[in-house]
Amino acid sequence: MSVLHQIKPAPSVNPVERLMAATAEDMARVNALILDRARSHVDMVPELARYLIDSGGKRLRPMLTVAAAQLFGQSQGHAVNFAAAVEFMHNATLLHDDVVDESDMRRGKPAARMVWGNKASILVGDFLLGQAFMMMVETGNVAALGVLSSASAVMAEGEVFQLAKTGDLNTSAEDYAEVIRAKTAVLFEAACRVGAMSGGADASGCDALGRYGLELGNAFQLVDDALDYGGQSGTLGKNVGDDLREGKMTLPVILALQAASDSEKAIIAAALGKADATDLEVHQVVAIFGKYDTLNRTLAKAHEHAAAAIAALAGLPDSEMKTILADVVEHSVGRAS
Amino acid sequence: MSVLHQIKPAPSVNPVERLMAATAEDMARVNALILDRARSHVDMVPELARYLIDSGGKRLRPMLTVAAAQLFGQSQGHAVNFAAAVEFMHNATLLHDDVVDESDMRRGKPAARMVWGNKASILVGDFLLGQAFMMMVETGNVAALGVLSSASAVMAEGEVFQLAKTGDLNTSAEDYAEVIRAKTAVLFEAACRVGAMSGGADASGCDALGRYGLELGNAFQLVDDALDYGGQSGTLGKNVGDDLREGKMTLPVILALQAASDSEKAIIAAALGKADATDLEVHQVVAIFGKYDTLNRTLAKAHEHAAAAIAALAGLPDSEMKTILADVVEHSVGRAS
Repeated sequence: MSVLHQIKPAPSVNPVERLMAATAEDMARVNALILDRARSHVDMVPELARYLIDSGGKRLRPMLTVAAAQLFGQSQGHAVNFAAAVEFMHNATLLHDDVVDESDMRRGKPAARMVWGNKASILVGDFLLGQAFMMMVETGNVAALGVLSSASAVMAEGEVFQLAKTGDLNTSAEDYAEVIRAKTAVLFEAACRVGAMSGGADASGCDALGRYGLELGNAFQLVDDALDYGGQSGTLGKNVGDDLREGKMTLPVILALQAASDSEKAIIAAALGKADATDLEVHQVVAIFGKYDTLNRTLAKAHEHAAAAIAALAGLPDSEMKTILADVVEHSVGRAS
Repeated sequence: MSVLHQIKPAPSVNPVERLMAATAEDMARVNALILDRARSHVDMVPELARYLIDSGGKRLRPMLTVAAAQLFGQSQGHAVNFAAAVEFMHNATLLHDDVVDESDMRRGKPAARMVWGNKASILVGDFLLGQAFMMMVETGNVAALGVLSSASAVMAEGEVFQLAKTGDLNTSAEDYAEVIRAKTAVLFEAACRVGAMSGGADASGCDALGRYGLELGNAFQLVDDALDYGGQSGTLGKNVGDDLREGKMTLPVILALQAASDSEKAIIAAALGKADATDLEVHQVVAIFGKYDTLNRTLAKAHEHAAAAIAALAGLPDSEMKTILADVVEHSVGRAS
């Protein structure tokens, strides 16, 4: 951890930047491994994979893996492999999600499927998943392999569940909780848990980090789903209402439908899943959200999960990394205010 | 192997049926595991998965896994898990391939994507892949996990390579050999190799079965690619010419382009990748194949690989199962004559 002491930043710095600084040395290894394993004699594979992987994502998930390993004192072992595998799993999911959601943009530039097509996006996603498993297998850590392979199946199951619930006005808050747990939180959980495992944590340490990751992931997705409608302020901007146009049953919609009058329900139902819904139609729906305070109620739920994430760390010895991990949670729910 | 002696069929019986009889007891366990692991609280997952899995495929790949384990005397261990995992990997590939190839039919009925849509097919494929890895991980056999995860990445890479070469008139016979090795033969190789590993084979036994699977897979795909144009006879029937309409650069086309006159090349090029090519256009292309004997030359190549598959078994002790495995090779190349 010597590097930490050299570059220890002031606490006022953005917590994600502090996490980046604290994991910079390990992440350099992770990034080298990612580049190496995206190689292929088939040119389209690294071209497409690197287009996505290099497109400016923060690599939060692999950072959490090496951070969790560091927290328990050992990040030079298998954590680097697991971190790269987690990032490949995440990117494979993004490639397939963009095909499934027919998304045009990803991280501010055209989605890979708009450049190389749906077919290549599906197949390169499969390639990244296969490479992820190879990197995990190389560690020989069967318990960690179990955590990650289970996450892989649960994530796909969550995506199918979300697809099945698309536009379903009877979707419950419990259904939604299951969708975000499966499609988002479980990978955060796995990323943190295998980091702790490879860092030498005991069972209670692994459970603490797993719980931290799960709750952070839940909070993260709730905030994303509120931000899709402009966040707390409900301010309309670019891409606001994408989830509405895709018919995604997120918590702001579900809570609104539970409280709305019949005429309000009709307004929501008409816009939900309407790909060419106008900004005015989106605005009308967000106005109903405002009446029933559903964006704030969604964010309040995110804050509950954030508190649970921080509480999960309570039993661990105090350290700089523990503070950073707690602050990252606060920061991630603060995005929407 | 007591069940074998009870039901030992006459050698004249179809070798695949003899393989089915010899592996029936283990395959009952494999099939039960397949049904169990296709379950999900998300209804669409087992519905779609079982629609495909129960659709009358012969389950040749998992049969090879348990047969390879039996060959070395031990099929009660991890072979059942590996066999089910191999079948899940294969079915995940079929789901994604049908989306990529825009196929309407699979095994004589509407493709899953025609019933549940492309989106569900992509995501359930991902689910099956995740479940496959979970079943492998449960064995704790890291070496076998390495074989199967590597196969998974290579298969996807092969599919991307095939996609990149679609309609490319300069595709060489070497390119084609690489495509069929990666997209088909490597899973046969892995299926046989992990079967041998879980059956207790030593390194040379594992290598022999791996080589057997690889060569059988190559022969199998060459025959499929000749059959797509009617096989040796070049007889046109239902679905003949699908590969041509999809622009797939298979060996019959590649060999024809190498030998054809400019006007013949123009006829092939015009039909290649033309989704609505008429039967007459396909017939004109097959006539050019006939002139240069490319279907027979493709089948001759299949016979070379078949001979190599049988030769791979030569060093192993004689047994009923060894005879069946050799006869299965002969049978699979005999399909096209």
